Amino acid sequence: MTTQNLLENHRSIRKYSSKNIDQERLEKLLTAGIRASNTGNMQLYSIVVTQGEDEKKALAPAHFYQPMATEAPLVLTICADVNRFSIWCKERKAEPGFDNFQSFITAAIDAVIVAQNIVISAEAMGMGACYLGTTLYTADKIIEILNLPRGVIPITTLTIGYPAETPELTERLPLEAVVHYEKYNNYTPAKIDEYFEEKESIEEYKEFIKQNNKETLAQVFTDVRYPKESSVKFSEVLLETLKKQGFL
Amino acid sequence: MTTQNLLENHRSIRKYSSKNIDQERLEKLLTAGIRASNTGNMQLYSIVVTQGEDEKKALAPAHFYQPMATEAPLVLTICADVNRFSIWCKERKAEPGFDNFQSFITAAIDAVIVAQNIVISAEAMGMGACYLGTTLYTADKIIEILNLPRGVIPITTLTIGYPAETPELTERLPLEAVVHYEKYNNYTPAKIDEYFEEKESIEEYKEFIKQNNKETLAQVFTDVRYPKESSVKFSEVLLETLKKQGFL
Repeated sequence: MTTQNLLENHRSIRKYSSKNIDQERLEKLLTAGIRASNTGNMQLYSIVVTQGEDEKKALAPAHFYQPMATEAPLVLTICADVNRFSIWCKERKAEPGFDNFQSFITAAIDAVIVAQNIVISAEAMGMGACYLGTTLYTADKIIEILNLPRGVIPITTLTIGYPAETPELTERLPLEAVVHYEKYNNYTPAKIDEYFEEKESIEEYKEFIKQNNKETLAQVFTDVRYPKESSVKFSEVLLETLKKQGFL
Repeated sequence: MTTQNLLENHRSIRKYSSKNIDQERLEKLLTAGIRASNTGNMQLYSIVVTQGEDEKKALAPAHFYQPMATEAPLVLTICADVNRFSIWCKERKAEPGFDNFQSFITAAIDAVIVAQNIVISAEAMGMGACYLGTTLYTADKIIEILNLPRGVIPITTLTIGYPAETPELTERLPLEAVVHYEKYNNYTPAKIDEYFEEKESIEEYKEFIKQNNKETLAQVFTDVRYPKESSVKFSEVLLETLKKQGFL
């Protein structure tokens, strides 16, 4: 498969076979990760590898007991990390200045680039992966479990293994819905209708609406999947965590 | 080249030939981007395509007049965007709850995953790309130039074109320096010496130290390239911008 085909055929894989990932392949994944672009080549990230059953179980509550978090042979917690570089600076008579919000976002971006390279490397080797968005909801707990020092925050988690499912491609909005030429063209109600028409016509989503006793698909997102109260609560915890880890 | 080889041989490309990127290839890049994983398939991102000479010039100061920002045939500003999804919600009798910090970080992560898929797609088609970290320093200015509404923040920018240079692979810390097994192992001074030895032995970097009249390579980073005063100032502007765009 060409790289372009691989990119265009991504599926998140949540069910894994019992086949393990050997050390050689693990190192290929990690190498693909660290060869990615990063800011100033400072490598302001760390990757925590979880393979032990007990260690996966310890992380499970932080990922709301989603089955893939314990069933995957490999769990990678990808962190923004200014700690290592700052220690180096202090050891070399230099005063590090990475204890601020801008450094956090920079390190977080670099961590995500690492993660996506790992996903693509996994898929190229016939494995599958899934991002766990729960990482940001429970960063404070993951910090405790993984022993992350000040200057380190988990940004995302990948579960990786050999696929035991072959899910359908999920739909996407048409390209013109997310791409703007030269300037941002804000969305009229008519354009919204046009761009979301395909999504709203999917039978599986219509079923969600019924199951959740809602009137529209959008209400499934706002009332059930991503309610504002949860996001506001998670925001408070995350901002507190940023402060505690030295970024605010 | 296999996908793994492609990932392991990434170079940032800052000099481009005069060859343009046609619409078909542009759409392949963008399609690779939007096929990537994203949170809840909400696609909380937008991509602004800049190809016009005048429009590139308008963005140039926001990227500190780095030559690739105007010399590349294609400039993509990748944004976290909760605006489109929120308009859809409001049009469908649903109350969107994405005006908070957690939603910002979620959208920013998704935007970066899109960006990295575009980089890999570009490289697979024989193009090269470079991330412009300046995007976060001047997000407030880019918002004005690209007309980004509330709910939208630029996260990163890619310059893309056919390479007119073949740079060397840049070094990376050894894998064991950034990877932790099961728990984070904090760094002792001895480990820091070991992990940074290769970096510190590179002739080109020794030259940087001399040119900048510094004693150590770390001081080049802290005093010249990423001084704390700048990061603190950029942090203030970025937090203000988050507030203004409705995320804090």
